[in-house]
Amino acid sequence: MSSRRNFIEKLSITAVGLPLLHSPAQLFASSTEPYDGPILKVAIMGLGSYGTRVAKAMEDCKRAKLVGVISGTPSKIKKWQSKYNLPDKNCYNYENFDAIKDNPDIDAVYVITPNGLHKDQSIRVAEAGKHVICEKPMGVNAEEGQAMVDACNAANVKLLIGYRMHFEPKTVAVIQMRKDGAFGETKFFQGQSGFTIGDPTQWRLNKELSGGGAMMDIGIYSINGARYMLGEEPAWVTAQETKTNPEKFKEGIDETIQFQMGFPSGAVANCLSTYNMNNLDRFFMTGSKGFVEMQPSTGYGPIEGKTHKGKLTQPHVTHQTLQMDGMAALIFEGVQPIVPVDGEEGVKDMKIIDAIFLAAKTRDKVML
Amino acid sequence: MSSRRNFIEKLSITAVGLPLLHSPAQLFASSTEPYDGPILKVAIMGLGSYGTRVAKAMEDCKRAKLVGVISGTPSKIKKWQSKYNLPDKNCYNYENFDAIKDNPDIDAVYVITPNGLHKDQSIRVAEAGKHVICEKPMGVNAEEGQAMVDACNAANVKLLIGYRMHFEPKTVAVIQMRKDGAFGETKFFQGQSGFTIGDPTQWRLNKELSGGGAMMDIGIYSINGARYMLGEEPAWVTAQETKTNPEKFKEGIDETIQFQMGFPSGAVANCLSTYNMNNLDRFFMTGSKGFVEMQPSTGYGPIEGKTHKGKLTQPHVTHQTLQMDGMAALIFEGVQPIVPVDGEEGVKDMKIIDAIFLAAKTRDKVML
Repeated sequence: MSSRRNFIEKLSITAVGLPLLHSPAQLFASSTEPYDGPILKVAIMGLGSYGTRVAKAMEDCKRAKLVGVISGTPSKIKKWQSKYNLPDKNCYNYENFDAIKDNPDIDAVYVITPNGLHKDQSIRVAEAGKHVICEKPMGVNAEEGQAMVDACNAANVKLLIGYRMHFEPKTVAVIQMRKDGAFGETKFFQGQSGFTIGDPTQWRLNKELSGGGAMMDIGIYSINGARYMLGEEPAWVTAQETKTNPEKFKEGIDETIQFQMGFPSGAVANCLSTYNMNNLDRFFMTGSKGFVEMQPSTGYGPIEGKTHKGKLTQPHVTHQTLQMDGMAALIFEGVQPIVPVDGEEGVKDMKIIDAIFLAAKTRDKVML
Repeated sequence: MSSRRNFIEKLSITAVGLPLLHSPAQLFASSTEPYDGPILKVAIMGLGSYGTRVAKAMEDCKRAKLVGVISGTPSKIKKWQSKYNLPDKNCYNYENFDAIKDNPDIDAVYVITPNGLHKDQSIRVAEAGKHVICEKPMGVNAEEGQAMVDACNAANVKLLIGYRMHFEPKTVAVIQMRKDGAFGETKFFQGQSGFTIGDPTQWRLNKELSGGGAMMDIGIYSINGARYMLGEEPAWVTAQETKTNPEKFKEGIDETIQFQMGFPSGAVANCLSTYNMNNLDRFFMTGSKGFVEMQPSTGYGPIEGKTHKGKLTQPHVTHQTLQMDGMAALIFEGVQPIVPVDGEEGVKDMKIIDAIFLAAKTRDKVML
């Protein structure tokens, strides 16, 4: 029996007949076995610090491989070519990358550029017939996100969003506990996502490129976390914005936003998104039968946490390694992560971000 | 040198010349020495479960002593008389307790009745010329609280509110750290105060007697905590109410309220008050130089917590013992706790509660 079949037989089968990947740790563990299935050949678009991190993580992937780059900086391309042995024909710039459609050696492009560029770049990738992996936030609002979903559907390519936590072993274990009823009725989620941002000239503080401030960058973790920890979609949001430094955080760049969500069951969430506090990376969820707290909860790890049943002990694996192997399994074998990472999932978060910005502005409850 | 003078000399002197009690542990430690100063002779009004707890805690007080009771239930009075050796002349009911003015054996009355009765009862105690110690919330709104302050001022008696945490050793240590700048600029406070309330017929779920639901009873800890942890008074509040069980939590009885506060410095607070979740008793505060987290943070103890400097190790002492000894020191010697416990402090919390209820109703930001 091949290790691939062996791997697939370890998976459960969901109601709709798709294999469900219960634990990325399984995937990772199995990845130490020889793997003879298809390899997802990935080009990274945008060679900044996060692109560099993803490339490094992919060195340990069994199912995904960095094969090309798209960048506006020739010197960076040269460096990456040398480091990753990338042929000239797999290297593009922002003018010529549509030609990727004629390159059979690239299956997917991971878009890791400033948020404000995601939509147009992702649609161009889709139109070139390649799967799109887009870093979150998928765009600067839900309308952009939906346009990306539509374009990828029309081009018959996958659109996946860089939700690395959906593959992180402790997070997956907690979500599985919630699905199994270990927490009883989920009641309250608290998320704190923030750090003190440095260099005021960076693109993250430029509205044109970022689409917003802390919320787009880091607040989205609490939004997404509230949804996967409570297991519901919010019915309303409220939000309160505080700005102590309008020179650094200009119009349209949020510094600190507190936001709340209400869910159909009556569960509530209370969250903080900030660019003006020391590292805040804490999740807490309580239900009728138990609780979970995680700190750090969404950083690059190791994640740490405990539930009413004790400490979370799942091993740390580099998130982006698991993510890219998991996305390859999703694309080639339909292996679903415990919580979706598709474009629709991304649009759900973007709609909530839109609503939070509206609520902060109007100071009114915004129904979803 | 008498132990009392010895005790007083251990205290620092505040800017206004009043001795400041830096640590209730000092008070408690010194209370193991012989004490020859005045004893605060206290009558407890309301012999329910909290009154019983206070009486028991007072058994260990050196500076305060239970000497009488006010109750509407003769059988309870009898039981307490026997247990605490209380003379008939120090026992009153709700009709005749104004006669306490002619009783030199009682210095102060601790009002531990339902919130809706506090104002009238406290004013009657003041008019009888006795110091008033009133359990929190001091009344059902700020107007009542101010009337109590005015009446006690007019009668030239003290009005103290049962803020036991202001005497709790770990809490006091954290407040002192904050005052000493150990946390740098305080930035964010998170308070979670809640439990699942049982018997639906209890007075706490009767608007007439309670003035509100979880907010009056338990949410007030997060309000007061935000103020003493951040060291500022809020400039605004917002609030969102969720009610999953309108039969149990009738009109005017809040089940779950999330509320936020903004402070002049730009600091913010994000809090939860609920009668519908498993025990939630957590404080978190972060500043530019450090953090503190406490859980449990306001229960009867032991309180547990840690800061960026390590675990809080101050010893647990029954809160109400410290409170009553501390209040005696305040009344007789002007020894100020690290954060006030007077009527004005109570009114500050009541104004915030009023604003939270208004914000929840109007769904608008309410300026303070």
